[in-house]
Amino acid sequence: MAVQGPGVLQGIGDDCAILQSPGGGDDLLVSNDMFIENVHFTGSTLTAGEAGYRAIARALSDIAAMGGVPLWHLVSAAWGDRTGESWSREFFEGVREAGGKFGSTLVGGDTSRAPVFASDVTVIGSVPHGTALLRSGARPGDRIYVSGLLGGSEFGRIHGRSHPAAWERHVRPSPRIGLGQWLRGIASACMDLSDGLSLDLRRLCEASAVSAQIDALPCWPGVQREEAIHSGEDYELLFTAPPSVVIPETWEGLLPLTRIGEIQEGPAGEVLAYGESLPPLGYDHLERRRAPLNPDCGSVRD
Amino acid sequence: MAVQGPGVLQGIGDDCAILQSPGGGDDLLVSNDMFIENVHFTGSTLTAGEAGYRAIARALSDIAAMGGVPLWHLVSAAWGDRTGESWSREFFEGVREAGGKFGSTLVGGDTSRAPVFASDVTVIGSVPHGTALLRSGARPGDRIYVSGLLGGSEFGRIHGRSHPAAWERHVRPSPRIGLGQWLRGIASACMDLSDGLSLDLRRLCEASAVSAQIDALPCWPGVQREEAIHSGEDYELLFTAPPSVVIPETWEGLLPLTRIGEIQEGPAGEVLAYGESLPPLGYDHLERRRAPLNPDCGSVRD
Repeated sequence: MAVQGPGVLQGIGDDCAILQSPGGGDDLLVSNDMFIENVHFTGSTLTAGEAGYRAIARALSDIAAMGGVPLWHLVSAAWGDRTGESWSREFFEGVREAGGKFGSTLVGGDTSRAPVFASDVTVIGSVPHGTALLRSGARPGDRIYVSGLLGGSEFGRIHGRSHPAAWERHVRPSPRIGLGQWLRGIASACMDLSDGLSLDLRRLCEASAVSAQIDALPCWPGVQREEAIHSGEDYELLFTAPPSVVIPETWEGLLPLTRIGEIQEGPAGEVLAYGESLPPLGYDHLERRRAPLNPDCGSVRD
Repeated sequence: MAVQGPGVLQGIGDDCAILQSPGGGDDLLVSNDMFIENVHFTGSTLTAGEAGYRAIARALSDIAAMGGVPLWHLVSAAWGDRTGESWSREFFEGVREAGGKFGSTLVGGDTSRAPVFASDVTVIGSVPHGTALLRSGARPGDRIYVSGLLGGSEFGRIHGRSHPAAWERHVRPSPRIGLGQWLRGIASACMDLSDGLSLDLRRLCEASAVSAQIDALPCWPGVQREEAIHSGEDYELLFTAPPSVVIPETWEGLLPLTRIGEIQEGPAGEVLAYGESLPPLGYDHLERRRAPLNPDCGSVRD
């Protein structure tokens, strides 16, 4: 959706809005992400501090997806019936920890109350003018890549603290900020994987008016292909690059970058996985199932 | 509270954060405002379109309070059990109407679900570098002013559509954007009146480490002095200026500017009204009563 106005370089429809700085120079990136009890998490799985950390990390993943440098964040939080003053204090300790780790400063927000805990995180970052990574740049023939291993966050959520690595992945996702910046000028399109590859790749293809086929998937140990393709909340980067660009097997020798398929001409948004068409299914963060897309429960951005 | 970080000119503690544009030039103003069913409004009093309009107008009042020019806004909204797709569509029609009226462009947001409707509006504006109006600049001897008439919004909420002018004031508040910009270089301190004069003037005095005395109040027709002093949601501007500055009786010949008292040396935050000390009471948006301040239900900014 192209919503434009003064100073709006990219409105609704990508991971962040891209805005022209009042003084020129670098472009601004801005995004909001809600994080709500019983929708995105339950109080029985996450501590308050973990919830605060996760709320910031997942929001900053949108800055990473655009190739941006995180600068500032604002946190609005409505305390639920179950969450009082000490919960709030611990939540903001998690916010502080994640902000410090990823180089973003808390500059404001609002507090209120609601039947359940409901938060909204605004993140603001920057990129050199005109260099933000968009979802819309993929072209037929481009190769499709993902960072990391897919399905780890959901595996962690299901198996809990008995699988420490997967649990850590679930509780403290790592927005791929360095990788995103490195991909500026390299990737033809990029977005982060928040709702699962099947749905997110479809969005990238819709934005680029292309189709895609997938024939490989880097799965988290113990995770089946069918699960990895639909699992949400990995916060890895999904990106495309022309065949002429050499993408290394790892980024900085640590993070795997796997070629999973190819962009093709075809109906906008169509995704073939191992030769079969992937239906347009959404991801329910708590039910761990693929559900028909509910237009009321997606993102304004999508 | 001075929270600082790279590019943070003013962190938490005022109506907006003031941030340094990546390219220099004008400063950025950013603020978040939650607007939640059964806390800030009820579905039985406001239509969806009115709720959308109000959510934007009240958030832009924070830009006005800093002397800023509105640029962009993001709207996160969690639909409640009672509010479905058509409610959502109408809500965003109200958002669009207010954005158009006050010159701000919708550039993003997020949607989710919750037991009640819960929204959070992020507003971004700009001011020439170093000229933002702060709460902290009031000095003993400065005169205290408010724009408009106080108590109208609450009068409208109580009496409903049978009092059209007050109702309109309640439903469609007018952020004093032009006045705020005019006050740059004139006012020594400024903030908007969202939680009632008694509480907001106390906040201004705390930020400026001064006391205040009030001996006049411009009341909405039919509103008693005692009500006007505690009524919230007028979204008028409260500002101070040294005696050497001549403040006209109206701004642009239309909006009354009333001198209501004087800043004094004394305990930070103390407010005397007509010779009596005003207790530190908060404002409950729905109960229309003064309640002891609940630290969980204020604003991160306050």
